[in-house]
Amino acid sequence: MENWTRIDQQVKLWLQEAGNKIVTSFKTSPEIMYKTNPDDLVTNIDQETEQFFTDKIREAFPGHHILGEEGFGDPLTDLEGIVWIIDPIDGTTNFVHQQRNFMISIGIYEDGSPRLGYVYDVVFKELYYAKAGEGAYWNDMKLPPLKEVPLEQALIGINSTWLTSNRLLEPKDTLVPLVNDVRGTRSYGSAALEFVFVATGRLDAYITMRLSPWDFAGGKIIVEEVGGKVTNVKGEPLHLLGKNSILVARPGLHEKIIQDYLSKGMN
Amino acid sequence: MENWTRIDQQVKLWLQEAGNKIVTSFKTSPEIMYKTNPDDLVTNIDQETEQFFTDKIREAFPGHHILGEEGFGDPLTDLEGIVWIIDPIDGTTNFVHQQRNFMISIGIYEDGSPRLGYVYDVVFKELYYAKAGEGAYWNDMKLPPLKEVPLEQALIGINSTWLTSNRLLEPKDTLVPLVNDVRGTRSYGSAALEFVFVATGRLDAYITMRLSPWDFAGGKIIVEEVGGKVTNVKGEPLHLLGKNSILVARPGLHEKIIQDYLSKGMN
Repeated sequence: MENWTRIDQQVKLWLQEAGNKIVTSFKTSPEIMYKTNPDDLVTNIDQETEQFFTDKIREAFPGHHILGEEGFGDPLTDLEGIVWIIDPIDGTTNFVHQQRNFMISIGIYEDGSPRLGYVYDVVFKELYYAKAGEGAYWNDMKLPPLKEVPLEQALIGINSTWLTSNRLLEPKDTLVPLVNDVRGTRSYGSAALEFVFVATGRLDAYITMRLSPWDFAGGKIIVEEVGGKVTNVKGEPLHLLGKNSILVARPGLHEKIIQDYLSKGMN
Repeated sequence: MENWTRIDQQVKLWLQEAGNKIVTSFKTSPEIMYKTNPDDLVTNIDQETEQFFTDKIREAFPGHHILGEEGFGDPLTDLEGIVWIIDPIDGTTNFVHQQRNFMISIGIYEDGSPRLGYVYDVVFKELYYAKAGEGAYWNDMKLPPLKEVPLEQALIGINSTWLTSNRLLEPKDTLVPLVNDVRGTRSYGSAALEFVFVATGRLDAYITMRLSPWDFAGGKIIVEEVGGKVTNVKGEPLHLLGKNSILVARPGLHEKIIQDYLSKGMN
């Protein structure tokens, strides 16, 4: 039997420690490297932060597995046992351009089932977390269950890029009617941030066409714990070992967006 | 001769006082009213905050004029004398949905020329301000002059709605190539916030098709003080007494966006 309370306490201490290191690093300019293209920036801080977590986890919990964006984790082909899915800096472009609006994201799963989820805003020291079955929190505040809202009053997270021609969307103007019908749209450039904005009711939904498991593993547990729905844009469950399109929304709104907008055409 | 130092000190005290009132108001749910449509929310807090500023200004500076979003100011037909242009809550939808990401914005002009600009993030207590000719500040930090960046590395503020069919844009897909060519886009739902994000280099540009003077009067002074360019989408100066389209950007990038993208077609 795992001691989830002990793991939870440990993660929170590590998040604080990693967060302090990152904020201190702003005094030195991050040494930027390019992974595959200029949109996919990666910094030494990203890598150092993932290394920090993998070292700590391997020492404290040697039987656990790790899936991390920067590749310091394990080469996993299944979700057996306890798996930590980590994004050391979700929103790297924001990190580089803004030194804000990026998150540390951690999701801990046991045989594929959610256990603990964390999204930490390092700069403003805001922690969002959930223990599956025991509720979700924003700092010390327990988050209330998400209620339904009419689509015309919804504020949704969606990036402009999904309104332009794009090979992941067919027909390419699938999302135009949705953008026209809702109250407004926002885009923050960090999936983890957008997930916890749905969990706190600051956004009513969030749509994106491609995320990796580390982008959503922490946020998914938090959103589901307050009754939000997290699927791909067809309404199917997400795969935790590969890329997915994403629709996160309040109950009711999730079904409505799929039925009235997304099912009209999508790969 | 106006004592601008005295006015500056006074504004900062009022911003603090108004900010504290707004944050306190979160404990009571804002009584929402609808102005013209559901996208144009206005709350009693908006009105109370504008009333607070107009009362203070009229008492302290009886000869000054006031242009305010909520209508507690003066019916102005010109910019003679000293004019305060005030948005008590820029980002009202964010205020209602998020209780964050909204700003108090104040621009003070003398015979149409910029004198003092303020954008205040009430929740995180971040003040952006400028004294024309003496530089701009983020809290206690003097902001450095904006440098040029290549368009492919630019992060720009633009809302998805400008990528859909829209009567303010002709041809309607004018902005699609720009969105495809830049590094990324963001949208925060507060023009004042997006102006100061350009001033601090967190965004490289910001484009929108329609703003009122109170949305940009404070931010414009701050951006221009660090060398950023603020015009309409044709590159023409903004009118301070009417609605304008907006292009705010770093030097160089501003000209490039107009020449290579916006001049290809626009009302």
